[in-house]
Amino acid sequence: MSEQREGGERLSRAAAHRLSLYLRALAGWPADGGKVSSGRIAEACAVSDAQVRRDLAALGNLGQRGIGYDARDLVAAIRAALGIDRTWRAVLVGVGNLARALLRYQGFRAQGFDIVGLFDTDPAKIGQVVEGLTVESAATLGGRAKELGAELAVLTVPAETAQAVADVLAAAGVRGVLNFAPVLLRLPPRVKLVTVDLAIQLEQLAFLIQPGEAEPAPADG
Amino acid sequence: MSEQREGGERLSRAAAHRLSLYLRALAGWPADGGKVSSGRIAEACAVSDAQVRRDLAALGNLGQRGIGYDARDLVAAIRAALGIDRTWRAVLVGVGNLARALLRYQGFRAQGFDIVGLFDTDPAKIGQVVEGLTVESAATLGGRAKELGAELAVLTVPAETAQAVADVLAAAGVRGVLNFAPVLLRLPPRVKLVTVDLAIQLEQLAFLIQPGEAEPAPADG
Repeated sequence: MSEQREGGERLSRAAAHRLSLYLRALAGWPADGGKVSSGRIAEACAVSDAQVRRDLAALGNLGQRGIGYDARDLVAAIRAALGIDRTWRAVLVGVGNLARALLRYQGFRAQGFDIVGLFDTDPAKIGQVVEGLTVESAATLGGRAKELGAELAVLTVPAETAQAVADVLAAAGVRGVLNFAPVLLRLPPRVKLVTVDLAIQLEQLAFLIQPGEAEPAPADG
Repeated sequence: MSEQREGGERLSRAAAHRLSLYLRALAGWPADGGKVSSGRIAEACAVSDAQVRRDLAALGNLGQRGIGYDARDLVAAIRAALGIDRTWRAVLVGVGNLARALLRYQGFRAQGFDIVGLFDTDPAKIGQVVEGLTVESAATLGGRAKELGAELAVLTVPAETAQAVADVLAAAGVRGVLNFAPVLLRLPPRVKLVTVDLAIQLEQLAFLIQPGEAEPAPADG
């Protein structure tokens, strides 16, 4: 993962991931409207102090030497850099237990993700109201995603159907997919993909606890 | 993320992640007992052919020039390298929707993770049978985790209680924690941590779809 960016203005994906960690650390501290040091963020996120200062310097002239960063300004700057200082309209496809857990997850709305439509293929689920939204037929997904102005989609469908659903969403103009199905999706380059593959996370944990593993456990996302 | 390892025998964490992706790709293809080329794996995982060949060469003498790899041997070698060629006993703490989704997730057992105990603080949940296991009181977690021989733990508890639960698990001798609570946990170095932080994944997706972002979307886990 290279930290070098040709344009210079945009963050690397690794830097964006660290900014997410900083935001998580800042959220865990009392909102006293006070100052926070790069060292405190560095310690909480298991990143070097110098790295934190470099990452935050890239966001603009935020800190004051010897005083630190204004916590509120820092949160606002990081949210702007990550693109979560606005609301994203999203549809969710596949209304099972995972979807219900996600819909109840406070973080969705807090990060500016507004779920505006639920879809499923199961006739028993279509018409049900889940967390205030009525489940619609997945057969109508393409047209409805456009009507709803969905920019993002959350996929909590079985692996077998994920690619077909992703194709419909891509054709409907969705720009990003958060995929929980354990499958490697293929999407046109204009549609961005983040996959949360639990099997891979489990494998990484098994790998880490094998005898001989000496790397420190980072607080990764 | 450095690919350099001082010892030389162990994989880097990045390489382990790529092996997980290769395994995912191999699982998606028909088990015809046949051969598979590094190029086919490379294409499915959006990794270079040379990288795939290097990663697989590190696992031993598996491929034959011009013929490719035996798919079954490759899967076995990757599973051994990742430490999922055995069964890991795990407890799950926090029996909500996410936990229910995870318990139904076929990948858990397929990756060798055997959930042997469920724990919650909610009196209404204690005693319930979920996916064949009786939910026990979280107050008994430390002693029961030892009795059950738990090596791993899955945390699906609220952010506020995650650290306290993690401390109990660490004291009980658990070696690895798969954490879904949106919080940066602190654990002793002998306890490994993999955090699945949905807020961070959402932030990364928002970051990727911002105007100006030009990086290809990797099939990450």
